[in-house]
Amino acid sequence: MSVTNSIIEHIHAHASARHYKPDPVPNEWLEAIVAAGQRASSSSNLQAYSVIAVTNPQTRAALAHLCGDQEHIAEAPLFLAFCADLSRLNRAAELRHHSLVSEPTEHFLIAAVDAALMAQNTALAAESLGLGVCYIGSLRNHPPEVAKLLNLPRLMFPLVGMTLGFPTRAGRVRPRLPLKGVLHHEVYSDQNQDAALAEYDEAMIATGIYDNRQVAVPGHPDKMEQYGWTEHSARRMSQPSRAALRKQIQDMGWGLE
Amino acid sequence: MSVTNSIIEHIHAHASARHYKPDPVPNEWLEAIVAAGQRASSSSNLQAYSVIAVTNPQTRAALAHLCGDQEHIAEAPLFLAFCADLSRLNRAAELRHHSLVSEPTEHFLIAAVDAALMAQNTALAAESLGLGVCYIGSLRNHPPEVAKLLNLPRLMFPLVGMTLGFPTRAGRVRPRLPLKGVLHHEVYSDQNQDAALAEYDEAMIATGIYDNRQVAVPGHPDKMEQYGWTEHSARRMSQPSRAALRKQIQDMGWGLE
Repeated sequence: MSVTNSIIEHIHAHASARHYKPDPVPNEWLEAIVAAGQRASSSSNLQAYSVIAVTNPQTRAALAHLCGDQEHIAEAPLFLAFCADLSRLNRAAELRHHSLVSEPTEHFLIAAVDAALMAQNTALAAESLGLGVCYIGSLRNHPPEVAKLLNLPRLMFPLVGMTLGFPTRAGRVRPRLPLKGVLHHEVYSDQNQDAALAEYDEAMIATGIYDNRQVAVPGHPDKMEQYGWTEHSARRMSQPSRAALRKQIQDMGWGLE
Repeated sequence: MSVTNSIIEHIHAHASARHYKPDPVPNEWLEAIVAAGQRASSSSNLQAYSVIAVTNPQTRAALAHLCGDQEHIAEAPLFLAFCADLSRLNRAAELRHHSLVSEPTEHFLIAAVDAALMAQNTALAAESLGLGVCYIGSLRNHPPEVAKLLNLPRLMFPLVGMTLGFPTRAGRVRPRLPLKGVLHHEVYSDQNQDAALAEYDEAMIATGIYDNRQVAVPGHPDKMEQYGWTEHSARRMSQPSRAALRKQIQDMGWGLE
């Protein structure tokens, strides 16, 4: 990195933590990191999010089970559920005798982007205090059960979770896609795409994350090659995961048309 | 803030910039801030995003027009379009002889959250270099036209934009909702909601942003009171803005079922 400073270095130091000490996160820290989350930009300053902070061990165990039986969710002393929240704006409309217009897709996106931006500020603030964090996308595995557990009203949706605590070991910083595959100048172009995928496969294989696993060359079942990110991600995207999601979001009051 | 440090202070210093010098953003800075963006967590490391960096004045003028005629989009030397990108993963599947499973809502959410997290890292990195930034949600005003202008293929979606440049004047840091209205302990509760809205109305009115505007008390058309955030946001949410969004996303290949 030729262009850098302490903020950029902090951003680059992120690695998800999946092993935590039992020591609790002080409440003043929780308040400081969520307040830092609130400083993220928000669409028209609508702040369409809420955060549920869970420390209760039974609730954390239940969340661990609902989120794909991930042990570190039960282990981490603090779990944050970042929720898209239209219920506050619905209450604002009620108080002021207005009615929300029915634009559920846009409203859901406003809330989801707002919640994600604030989550990322929260993550960086937490890491700046020496906490480890790990995003939990599988909070979307069972949204109705999560909503029940966390007492979420209509017009809220548990978008993404986060475990937080003092890590017992450092996570590993993984390489990302080559910049040329992600950053496009003036217009999008796919001219670098296949080269970026090939380079990234090599970089990810070199980390050892795939245990030197072999896979058949597509179209040549008798010829083997290294299993890389392209194969891994293609498989991930060809497996069903959250087929009921749209209906579940609708059932929580968003009524995506 | 009792709990703070240089990272948290940096996060708190954010204020959207809407006035820029013409001086270009050096290309090494662009690369450094997008690379910082890439360090954000990504769902299953899928990195389902792409960023289009626009410096061409004609394209910026066209974007300014498509995004609600916001002058600072034409003025800022750099515009970043953060796109939800499933096209790369679709290509990965093609190369590896797999087929993406049809879960458009979940896939769209994976990509949207990934793109938002990386945008927020990018924003903080840019600000650490002395750049000003402003998110442009109105990039979603005319997605088909934006897609054409930026040559976006099928299975991409322009989620949110950002203007960047050297600011000519500092933006104003606005108060946010009281923490007690946003942060919930163990389970969600609306017990603080109305009090938080009332407090926030006072805080926002005190900034002068609403020019001491008056509005009728709901249910009492002859009685006036201060126009605050609750009224402002309730009005915003009761106005149509992007009614065609779902169909537009579908037309871009996502096929939200």
